Amino acid sequence: MSLVVVGSVALDTVETRTETRERILGGAACFVSVTASHFTDVKLVGVIGQDFPREHLQMLEGRGVDLEGLECSEGQTFFWHGRYADDFSTRTSLSTELGVFADFHPDLPPAYREAQTLFLANIHPALQSHVCRQMSHARLIAADTMDFWIEGEPKALREMLGLVHLLTINDEEVRLLAGEHNMVKAARAVLTMGPRALVVKRGEHGALLFTGDEIFALPALPLSRVVDPTGAGDTFAGGMMGYLDGVDTVDPASMRIGVAYGTAAASFTVSDFSLDGLCRATRTDLDERVENLRRLTRF
Amino acid sequence: MSLVVVGSVALDTVETRTETRERILGGAACFVSVTASHFTDVKLVGVIGQDFPREHLQMLEGRGVDLEGLECSEGQTFFWHGRYADDFSTRTSLSTELGVFADFHPDLPPAYREAQTLFLANIHPALQSHVCRQMSHARLIAADTMDFWIEGEPKALREMLGLVHLLTINDEEVRLLAGEHNMVKAARAVLTMGPRALVVKRGEHGALLFTGDEIFALPALPLSRVVDPTGAGDTFAGGMMGYLDGVDTVDPASMRIGVAYGTAAASFTVSDFSLDGLCRATRTDLDERVENLRRLTRF
Repeated sequence: MSLVVVGSVALDTVETRTETRERILGGAACFVSVTASHFTDVKLVGVIGQDFPREHLQMLEGRGVDLEGLECSEGQTFFWHGRYADDFSTRTSLSTELGVFADFHPDLPPAYREAQTLFLANIHPALQSHVCRQMSHARLIAADTMDFWIEGEPKALREMLGLVHLLTINDEEVRLLAGEHNMVKAARAVLTMGPRALVVKRGEHGALLFTGDEIFALPALPLSRVVDPTGAGDTFAGGMMGYLDGVDTVDPASMRIGVAYGTAAASFTVSDFSLDGLCRATRTDLDERVENLRRLTRF
Repeated sequence: MSLVVVGSVALDTVETRTETRERILGGAACFVSVTASHFTDVKLVGVIGQDFPREHLQMLEGRGVDLEGLECSEGQTFFWHGRYADDFSTRTSLSTELGVFADFHPDLPPAYREAQTLFLANIHPALQSHVCRQMSHARLIAADTMDFWIEGEPKALREMLGLVHLLTINDEEVRLLAGEHNMVKAARAVLTMGPRALVVKRGEHGALLFTGDEIFALPALPLSRVVDPTGAGDTFAGGMMGYLDGVDTVDPASMRIGVAYGTAAASFTVSDFSLDGLCRATRTDLDERVENLRRLTRF
């Protein structure tokens, strides 16, 4: 089994109440890939500039992430500068420089096209569709998106939705996409647009999984210390997709466990800046935190 | 076993996007009492005016609620008029007329003072303490409160907290009381103020139960139809307290099941105006909805 991950690779400057970290590793595809590497073989598709530090490539290779699909172009790596409110309830983007990511046009290496599982992080929906069409027999294709595309590219978005099996977006995006505030009705509407399953990411309130008429709800792990929430949602997707590819099944029971691994992994990501907390965690740590989730919710 | 419930009995005019209902039965003590009557004997302490419709008294008596502690005074019953936003995300109080509730001074009938369990709905914390001192050997005393008392009566509030075992408030109230945004830290701070256990009500996101170092998290049941959310939090408390008094234990495992019954009961309350949905539900319906919660969260 292997999982192809397509999306941004970035350098982030992150400001929190207590600390500022400059040009640290970020980007949705990095968070997804590193998380999924705990569970399965990962093939990364993205683009970096000539300024991208060699140490990050070494870290990814060291975790077994295949970088044949990571293009290095002339120019600067995608850069994001953000500041979190003291209580992390909101964040402000101070600067976004797309750099080489502005011309990202993902073409998969031939070996990638045979993969069983594909995760499309948040990029233009037309590019997401373009990638879907390159896969020869993917059994599970999942995608993320955001308000910008839902509002600005509705036609391309609907086309993409027709090509994917699982959509992983946040609660406000579900409401926006469906034009409906009630979450159950909104989720049902999204499930008529193409995906067989929908994960609603609710941050500190956990996640909902809609599959047919079944609903699964999992709270987040209550954490006494959050250092940097950047990448939590992508980590969630990486844990879920990595787990599902690793166990080679997509039945609802496995998807529930996948949601639990995604939730567990996200709790490590937010415990430190960049991918530091996630990289320190072992598979055993993830298993233990999934057990914590069982204890948290059992009655 | 029996449960004494102290709090407001009210007539509410409720406006939603689709409908307005005038002078329907409301008040925290009514929601708590009717819910708890599914599980145990309930003794209600409150005050009504001469305008209070006889049919509501008959309904309460019909459910076995002891009304010896319900005083009828000269004047008007507590009246609240509120309007919900179209999506129920906010509500506006258009009118609050305290009426006879302004002079509410709860003195328990002698038979009530022997009860094992007491629930203090949201009233002035000095009155809550006054009631606590009348109980001869209560094993479980729980209280609700609100931002108005947390900010305006901090001394009386802290005194009350020293007399109760369980506090049931919402997430913003926990943060305000603790002066801390992080929920785990805030909850731990509240548990140093007196209560042995804290329930954090999070509306559509469910509830958290903190007991010592243990945390229990339960999502709300995702509902495709909400008619009137008034009384959902009080219903939650009534289900939890009624269940705990009925099973005559207060260990953490029972408290978790109590949270589940509170959550199940609230899903009936919001399905209709006033106590209509709650009154139609049977104990079997509540049991089934608790099973739904198990299926919702199992992985």
